Amino acid sequence: MVDVSEAHWSTKRWAEAIEARLTEGAAGDPLVNIRRGDTREFDALFLGGGAGGRFGAAYLRAMGGRPLIIDRWPFLGGSCPHHACVPHHVFSDVAAQLMLERTFSGKLWFQDLRGKTVSMLDIVEMFRRGRTGPHAFMNYQSAEQLELEFVLGQPGRLLDARSVAVGEQVYRARNLVLATGARARPLPSIADGIGGVFNYATLVDALNYEPGPTAIVVGSGKTAIEYACFFNATGRKTFVVSRQPPLALLPDAETRRFLIARMEEQGIEFVNPAEVVSCEDDASGRIRGVTLSGSQGPRRIATDFLFLGLGERPNSEEAHAVLGVDLDDDGSVRVDDRMRTSVPGVYAVGDLVGRPMEMFKARKGGTCAARNIMGEDARYQPRDYPDFLHTHYEVCWLGLGEEQARERYSNVVVMKLPPDNPDGHTVALPAGDRVMLYAMMKPELSGFQKLVIDGDSRRILGAFHVGYGAKDGFQYLAPMVRNGLTVDELGEMDELFLNPSYFIQLCRLRAGSRTLRSL
Amino acid sequence: MVDVSEAHWSTKRWAEAIEARLTEGAAGDPLVNIRRGDTREFDALFLGGGAGGRFGAAYLRAMGGRPLIIDRWPFLGGSCPHHACVPHHVFSDVAAQLMLERTFSGKLWFQDLRGKTVSMLDIVEMFRRGRTGPHAFMNYQSAEQLELEFVLGQPGRLLDARSVAVGEQVYRARNLVLATGARARPLPSIADGIGGVFNYATLVDALNYEPGPTAIVVGSGKTAIEYACFFNATGRKTFVVSRQPPLALLPDAETRRFLIARMEEQGIEFVNPAEVVSCEDDASGRIRGVTLSGSQGPRRIATDFLFLGLGERPNSEEAHAVLGVDLDDDGSVRVDDRMRTSVPGVYAVGDLVGRPMEMFKARKGGTCAARNIMGEDARYQPRDYPDFLHTHYEVCWLGLGEEQARERYSNVVVMKLPPDNPDGHTVALPAGDRVMLYAMMKPELSGFQKLVIDGDSRRILGAFHVGYGAKDGFQYLAPMVRNGLTVDELGEMDELFLNPSYFIQLCRLRAGSRTLRSL
Repeated sequence: MVDVSEAHWSTKRWAEAIEARLTEGAAGDPLVNIRRGDTREFDALFLGGGAGGRFGAAYLRAMGGRPLIIDRWPFLGGSCPHHACVPHHVFSDVAAQLMLERTFSGKLWFQDLRGKTVSMLDIVEMFRRGRTGPHAFMNYQSAEQLELEFVLGQPGRLLDARSVAVGEQVYRARNLVLATGARARPLPSIADGIGGVFNYATLVDALNYEPGPTAIVVGSGKTAIEYACFFNATGRKTFVVSRQPPLALLPDAETRRFLIARMEEQGIEFVNPAEVVSCEDDASGRIRGVTLSGSQGPRRIATDFLFLGLGERPNSEEAHAVLGVDLDDDGSVRVDDRMRTSVPGVYAVGDLVGRPMEMFKARKGGTCAARNIMGEDARYQPRDYPDFLHTHYEVCWLGLGEEQARERYSNVVVMKLPPDNPDGHTVALPAGDRVMLYAMMKPELSGFQKLVIDGDSRRILGAFHVGYGAKDGFQYLAPMVRNGLTVDELGEMDELFLNPSYFIQLCRLRAGSRTLRSL
Repeated sequence: MVDVSEAHWSTKRWAEAIEARLTEGAAGDPLVNIRRGDTREFDALFLGGGAGGRFGAAYLRAMGGRPLIIDRWPFLGGSCPHHACVPHHVFSDVAAQLMLERTFSGKLWFQDLRGKTVSMLDIVEMFRRGRTGPHAFMNYQSAEQLELEFVLGQPGRLLDARSVAVGEQVYRARNLVLATGARARPLPSIADGIGGVFNYATLVDALNYEPGPTAIVVGSGKTAIEYACFFNATGRKTFVVSRQPPLALLPDAETRRFLIARMEEQGIEFVNPAEVVSCEDDASGRIRGVTLSGSQGPRRIATDFLFLGLGERPNSEEAHAVLGVDLDDDGSVRVDDRMRTSVPGVYAVGDLVGRPMEMFKARKGGTCAARNIMGEDARYQPRDYPDFLHTHYEVCWLGLGEEQARERYSNVVVMKLPPDNPDGHTVALPAGDRVMLYAMMKPELSGFQKLVIDGDSRRILGAFHVGYGAKDGFQYLAPMVRNGLTVDELGEMDELFLNPSYFIQLCRLRAGSRTLRSL
């Protein structure tokens, strides 16, 4: 082991240590940051230092407790900076940038990308090199600013409800917090052992060739759509194959239609309902084609690149086998609203406890577990949260879609941009940062946004935004909407024009009216 | 005149009419949208259909009143879509995009822009062509959705406190709302009659040559900085000459330092305290150089392009001369918190009433005037509002800077990214949409953000963000901060990770502690 408890490494030093361990694979000695001389018992072992484990440990430490994090990776932060949120955002940024450059190819100062394919391998390798920076910062912040203790770089083995072994060393605590995350679901049996088949994790870890002109994505949820847009933006013909129509998680039909139309314009082909029934490989074992079955009959598509966006399975097997924690049908560890599993003293948080597999749920679950361990009666159940995904755009939403609202309310009012009008989407609004060139030269690409309102109570029921720069706003809007935010209150706020979401000003334009009308 | 009251023009038809009038100059007949058959007296004439006039009229109409807007331009929306917010956002979007492309020149798929100058004239002309779209939409929305009546395309002349003439036609109403805006201040006497000297309005209207390799900007406020970054991003050596240090309006020294360092890295040279004491012109009458005086002695800089960002002067002369409304020392029309001038029945709103010359103030002032005219006792004074500007980045802030907070509170806590650390800004955080490539390849460019907190009450005192995508969030954060938002409440919200502002998660990391510490 490498004792770093008094080393006070800088982010640069951490980056070197992490880099060495990631390139050596699992061979490095564990990095141990445990305060010598502190003889107190640990209040909790956090098995897994991702979003839930790290935030839970930080909160417990802030409350005066003593946590220990154990993680197989040589860095804290978990899958997010290594495989998930961070690369996803890098690739979505690339997709947005490439859509812009392709749209204006040869205009103004833009290079001509028409018909050109951009290297995916270069972009993946750029991320692979760049991710060490965020990893290093997580370790630095955790050690130096949050004063966390941790053992990194070797897997922890569950011994019992109070003990985890790392190699020969056994760590014990009053409580155990399971935070072992989830992993991508495979395509059962069909693609086993065939090369060129990736998920979000293996793409960034294992891609070692330049994919050809066609990419096939299986799935219809966030990951499938987000990666499909990235592959498409690099210039590859991209098929999205799914049983369900895409974007079903986005509860507003008009917003879905806008997004799907824009993706199709960029050249994405949606094939559904359909599924992959067989894969062929070439002499080297790499995929060379798939056969789909679907409502249109069987179809073969040649490709050397298949991406699976089929959701995730919680990493719950060891906890179930060793500790006997109860699982739900989907394999997630069952917890109550205090994050307690069926085994006393054992908590579970994050992707391990199932949906929504989102950052805020992991982190807030971690703090909820910490508070309970420290003697508070804290409760947490994710509800009424805002959500987002990326296409080539950033897409944010909260609350009810128009159809849902009309089922529950008799006087639904809608305010949107562009409005229904004889020229359709050829209106240069909404316009905001990052879409100004679209607004000026290609207005139908400048975005879409919509507020769904109960005309009787004047309360906001739902909000939808396609564009860029609204994600932060949706975070802060959500609790206000939950507390009954009205059109009149929203119209009283101070907009920072040109703001990405035009919600404030749209509300103000109608707020003078006792009988709200759509806009 | 052209009677459009029953024409129901589409945005496309409006665009054609506006385009024709803008290219003909003032020659077109006025576009008159007054409902024939409606014999009611007008409740208010809005002289000027920009932000204040249009929103005021829309609100008054929504309340059941009858407004009439008169504007010299053939479109509603005022200077914002024609000269101000919209082109500014176009140029700032260009600056952000070009900084990105220059930073990664020759890497990944990026073209090599090193040493290359991009045409400013092309970009200005692109905006000049594109602005008709937003203009057309404003007219469409105002006529078809907001049911506003208006007379556009010819200047209104004030006759008395109830009457405005357009050509031979006189319009009367119970009240008058002055909304005639402001205009850029000139450089007194020094640059009179010299070509190649621009302000934000004349740049987009009159630029007709490709500026050479050097741009000089005079001023230190928002407009000066924003346009300087645009000129710089096109590849021109850009000097910012001012009496005051730049960005004094941004109340946090560390945020200012971060921004100025980044602008200097991009090649902007700040010269202050200094001023332009003379301009030379060439045989064609265009500027060819300026002489500066300053603390470093006199200095001559050769240039064919001078931009003035010296603030604005309210267009109050006619109202003062004809109606006798009282003015403040800066030329703005004096109003009370009901938007009433010194002349009964005459209101004034927008840039005409002085600072802050911001969109929300104009629009909210307009609605406040409308409500008073319709018999309500409504009050409005802008206070505690969020603010923003652009460099190559989007910069948002609200509340107190760190120094201001330390003057007033004894226990100020700061949470920021990147934190103070041995490697400085080489930390790949904050990272969010539109900075992901920086975070991976050039982390010191990924941004800066800071929360200023009263450690005793745990309330947020100020927030600062340099990056992209936080503008919407600051709109919604502002009223919560005004109402006493605490670290604990902020830490309970649901972040949409990777969110541009890391405020929620930073707060959560510390919220467990009774004694708040900086982060």
